[in-house]
Amino acid sequence: MGVGDVSKRILLGRKLRSSQLGETLLPKRIALPVFASDALSSVAYAPDEVFIMLSLAGASAYVWSWKIGIAVALVMAAVVASYRQTVHAYPSGGGDYEVATVNLGANAGVTVASALLVDYVLTVAVSISSGAQYAAGAVPVLVGHEAMVATVFVVVLMAINLRGIRESGTFFAIPTYAFMVAILGMCAWGIIELVVGTLPKVESANLHITPAPGHGSSMTTLALMFLLARAFSSGCAALTGVEAISNGVPAFRKPKSRNAATTLLFLGMIAITMMLSVITLAKEMGLRYVDPAQLDRLSINGHPVPAGFDQNPVIAQIARAVFIDFSPAFYAVITVTGIILVLAANTAFNGFPVLGSILAKDGYAPRALGSRGDRLAYSNGIVFLAVMAIILIQVFNAETTRLIQLYIVGVFVSFNLSQLGMIRHWTRELKTQSDPARRRHMHRSRTINAVGLTFTAVVLVIVLITKFLAGAWITILAMVVFFMIMKGIRRHYDNVNEELAADEEDKVMPTRVHAIVLVSKLHKPTLRALAFAKATRPNALEGVYVSTDPEATNRLLEEWDERNLGVPLKVLHSPYRELVKPIVDYAMEIKKANPRGVVAVYIPEYVVGRWWEQLLHNQTALRLKGRLLFAPGVMVTSVPYQLRSSQIARERAERSRRRVRAGDLRRGQVTDRRGRGPR
Amino acid sequence: MGVGDVSKRILLGRKLRSSQLGETLLPKRIALPVFASDALSSVAYAPDEVFIMLSLAGASAYVWSWKIGIAVALVMAAVVASYRQTVHAYPSGGGDYEVATVNLGANAGVTVASALLVDYVLTVAVSISSGAQYAAGAVPVLVGHEAMVATVFVVVLMAINLRGIRESGTFFAIPTYAFMVAILGMCAWGIIELVVGTLPKVESANLHITPAPGHGSSMTTLALMFLLARAFSSGCAALTGVEAISNGVPAFRKPKSRNAATTLLFLGMIAITMMLSVITLAKEMGLRYVDPAQLDRLSINGHPVPAGFDQNPVIAQIARAVFIDFSPAFYAVITVTGIILVLAANTAFNGFPVLGSILAKDGYAPRALGSRGDRLAYSNGIVFLAVMAIILIQVFNAETTRLIQLYIVGVFVSFNLSQLGMIRHWTRELKTQSDPARRRHMHRSRTINAVGLTFTAVVLVIVLITKFLAGAWITILAMVVFFMIMKGIRRHYDNVNEELAADEEDKVMPTRVHAIVLVSKLHKPTLRALAFAKATRPNALEGVYVSTDPEATNRLLEEWDERNLGVPLKVLHSPYRELVKPIVDYAMEIKKANPRGVVAVYIPEYVVGRWWEQLLHNQTALRLKGRLLFAPGVMVTSVPYQLRSSQIARERAERSRRRVRAGDLRRGQVTDRRGRGPR
Repeated sequence: MGVGDVSKRILLGRKLRSSQLGETLLPKRIALPVFASDALSSVAYAPDEVFIMLSLAGASAYVWSWKIGIAVALVMAAVVASYRQTVHAYPSGGGDYEVATVNLGANAGVTVASALLVDYVLTVAVSISSGAQYAAGAVPVLVGHEAMVATVFVVVLMAINLRGIRESGTFFAIPTYAFMVAILGMCAWGIIELVVGTLPKVESANLHITPAPGHGSSMTTLALMFLLARAFSSGCAALTGVEAISNGVPAFRKPKSRNAATTLLFLGMIAITMMLSVITLAKEMGLRYVDPAQLDRLSINGHPVPAGFDQNPVIAQIARAVFIDFSPAFYAVITVTGIILVLAANTAFNGFPVLGSILAKDGYAPRALGSRGDRLAYSNGIVFLAVMAIILIQVFNAETTRLIQLYIVGVFVSFNLSQLGMIRHWTRELKTQSDPARRRHMHRSRTINAVGLTFTAVVLVIVLITKFLAGAWITILAMVVFFMIMKGIRRHYDNVNEELAADEEDKVMPTRVHAIVLVSKLHKPTLRALAFAKATRPNALEGVYVSTDPEATNRLLEEWDERNLGVPLKVLHSPYRELVKPIVDYAMEIKKANPRGVVAVYIPEYVVGRWWEQLLHNQTALRLKGRLLFAPGVMVTSVPYQLRSSQIARERAERSRRRVRAGDLRRGQVTDRRGRGPR
Repeated sequence: MGVGDVSKRILLGRKLRSSQLGETLLPKRIALPVFASDALSSVAYAPDEVFIMLSLAGASAYVWSWKIGIAVALVMAAVVASYRQTVHAYPSGGGDYEVATVNLGANAGVTVASALLVDYVLTVAVSISSGAQYAAGAVPVLVGHEAMVATVFVVVLMAINLRGIRESGTFFAIPTYAFMVAILGMCAWGIIELVVGTLPKVESANLHITPAPGHGSSMTTLALMFLLARAFSSGCAALTGVEAISNGVPAFRKPKSRNAATTLLFLGMIAITMMLSVITLAKEMGLRYVDPAQLDRLSINGHPVPAGFDQNPVIAQIARAVFIDFSPAFYAVITVTGIILVLAANTAFNGFPVLGSILAKDGYAPRALGSRGDRLAYSNGIVFLAVMAIILIQVFNAETTRLIQLYIVGVFVSFNLSQLGMIRHWTRELKTQSDPARRRHMHRSRTINAVGLTFTAVVLVIVLITKFLAGAWITILAMVVFFMIMKGIRRHYDNVNEELAADEEDKVMPTRVHAIVLVSKLHKPTLRALAFAKATRPNALEGVYVSTDPEATNRLLEEWDERNLGVPLKVLHSPYRELVKPIVDYAMEIKKANPRGVVAVYIPEYVVGRWWEQLLHNQTALRLKGRLLFAPGVMVTSVPYQLRSSQIARERAERSRRRVRAGDLRRGQVTDRRGRGPR
């Protein structure tokens, strides 16, 4: 591709830009699956956790299951209503982080950011662990190897995201809608059977659950309350991911806020319907489900369950019973559930870079995360996410029940701060608003957020009380660490900014430019560097050669004279073949002789294309440039000479630049398939 | 350290240089241990290998042991005599590589280099594996974990060499002389006992060896010949390392060649004495020794040896028997033997960078290896050596007997090519020499080298025949791979040189300099870059800002006007926050408008000192510089601004520069302890 093409492409790209941008924004029917997979997928594990907690008091406690389901549904309704306010008030996509920062200050914002970071790691760990359980449900040979399966899933997801996958609407739409159809269809069919009275029992219906020690029929009311609170807080895992839409408003079609709010409403309704249906069916079909670590509490006809017995997830048990006469439907339900769980994990890989770039813009993360195209910084983020998730999966042996204990704290910390921020937002807005209709509207919004805050605050307290020792302390510790790192980064940037703030004397121009051109041989790059240096008309110009071998030096001096270059050549002797130090020292000597002047060091470099060629060249130039950066009053100029093979590297860089990055879709940045889009 | 100190140190350093250089050269008594540890250490395993091979035909074959010892001693005498000629003819330290290159051409030289590279890896693997066996002999709990012990040794050696250890004469002298005293003392004591008739038997004397299948008393003469040839070629492992002195002539005191030749003679005499003494004593003391993989061929009183039985190395058995009444002496012998083996491995870590720098100078290895101070290239070499050695140790389970099969091929390939080269050398010299005395001397030298060639050629053929299938094919394959890599690197450098060769038109000066200064903010670094750029008086000068956010852009534009800088500011819009591409495109547009001009891009950079600070800054500048290298007609100037913390990095760089590198001693590069030496 020649220079002409490049400019043409720029022009073409610019012309297309604004129109194409509209095309790539998401209609509601596509936005729903893109942002909903995380929230909807939790129906695959949240009901299971409710039943596990209740089973501590034996199967009789399952009478509480639908009440807990309704309590979770109420909280979800409140949260959805609250976020609909957020979407209208903060359409820029900053989400909870922005709301907290603007209304509650930087510390609240950074707290939310820490919570979200922890949350992304846990989303991957929990979703993939749950997915591994479904995989083991469908492919029995995997039973007992869930941690290994989950780790492989994470590694594959990481590789896909490092490579750059085109996250398109279709990519999400098909599996998410398939999941909705499968689960809602299964539930509808089950409820019809329930009404007709032909509802079958699930496979675990004939099991007996021994209550856990201290949880039997002699349980105190207080202990029962605590148990119900634990079950409720585990069920609140269903709420994770609801906030995703508030981070993705810019990707919606216009009117963005209204469309986002509507989508959020749909999402809430679907999620509540699914969860309540699954809980009801499971209860009616006689489900018996305990913590997989306590299978010894299950018995059948008075005998303990045989060794090697394994529980299938709740949805798998329901599907198997409901579709007892049509096993393809059972496998379809299991498969789409597994896919949606992996998709939910993938949303964390996509959300992470978006959060990173927002944090970078505010100085809480390395600046490199803030600009598109820093592939290294971006890849590090994805690898970090994957490694943390794998550590959690291995430590907790991919047991969803134990990972859930860590999960919800982060989510509810950010829910709370966000709701509190929204209340402050409306209070502030009310101060300046005089139109009564709009004031009424604001009052209403503030009430909704206040209700939301009440609910989420109660849940957070319950979660902290019931889960702190069970693992939530790890989450809180991780949040504190992230918080301190981010504050530290910001403090560093602030210090640097202060040190760099310009004052008047900085405009002083150097009185003299002393240019030196490094010479290693008399070849094209050296001659080009000499010519370029001459073109800048410095006050003094000389070639500098580091002599490590008298013979080569004499040859060069002769050739230098022959060429009649009109530039003197300074020879620096270096008996031990050091190249960098003599040059640095010489530059500093010149600078010292002319403290108000500047030394310009010209380094001829030739540019090769293949990675192994790069290993063979320019190591000295690189080291020298690195060292000269520390010499005050010296500027370093690279004069490149492109060898034929450099074309290869140029093309590779261009390909890499055009590659899709995780998170593009959520930011409304999508190119068309020919890569001619708005980049 | 201020600039003044730096210059003073330079001057001081220069003044001291020539006098200090003399001081650091090695007297013979120090040079012997420095260069002899590799050659002498082989007495710790070479006799064992002879007995192992002979034991295939049962203990009766041990009658051949001293004859094989004498054959090995003869070869060693011939090789030592030959290398004494090399040391006189090629005092520059290039050793076999130089001799082969000069006299037989580049391909022979590269072949020798490949052989030496393989040899370094094997020196580490064999010495450390043997050392691990001695460690297991002294500390029985290590028995069976030799491969693990050896791997740990290699990792520790690697770490020490990466860190940079001061390889001083004392470092070698004490353990090497201790080893000589211990072994020669033990042998002397044993021989006195032998003469007096009180020589005890070794621990294995009462064992019986069952001959290996096909090697019994019914063995054919041909089979016996083959067996003796195998034993002989294993015994030739004693010759490895003899050539080291020829690579180290520059480190000797004057007269360098004569001192080196004398040291070589001492080395040869000591090595031969040790080897013959050990073999004689072992034979007389009734040693029984088989391949550790075939312990089932040993029996005691007609019963097989018990499970868990382990053989101690030959020297350990002799020492235990001779010092039966004084066990500290036994432990002393074992300990110094172990130390000398580790020291021998360390010489490979020291020789490797020296060979690398010679190869780099000739274009067969990456240039970066050729200059002191390229810590990265240098470290890569050490890590490479360690990793290859560990792979060999693990694959061969640290069994010296199996590793020996790979070892000697490389050594004898380089012996042969070197001797052949020396014969050519003398023939060529004879053509121009007319002084009869010197001609006689040359004829004598040529005869010595011819004898040397004959011996080493015979050994090489025997080694190839007896060991090819036992492992020597791996060595040959590795040599071929190294050979092809080195030739490929050289071909690449030649191609580049051809492409870079200067012609007349390269002197054309650009007609116009268009300078652009990148602006991200109006802070000190930007103002400094603007001032420096102005000082070069370009034909056109403008600031360039990539706008990703209209608000920030407006703020900057206002500030720019307020400051009254007298330089226009060009704003490039980048809606997707790409920073690099707009700048590269703009520079190329300017270049296109003025094809005969040059674009000078000034990048303000601020320099921080701590590694984590570096992660937080300048990623964009780095990427931009990388991309601009590929833009023809663009030169890139870094204008650094040193923040306070940059001092830390400067001090770190200085420390790293002054650090000792492996191989310094062998090149005659030693600083005194205060680090003020000739660097």
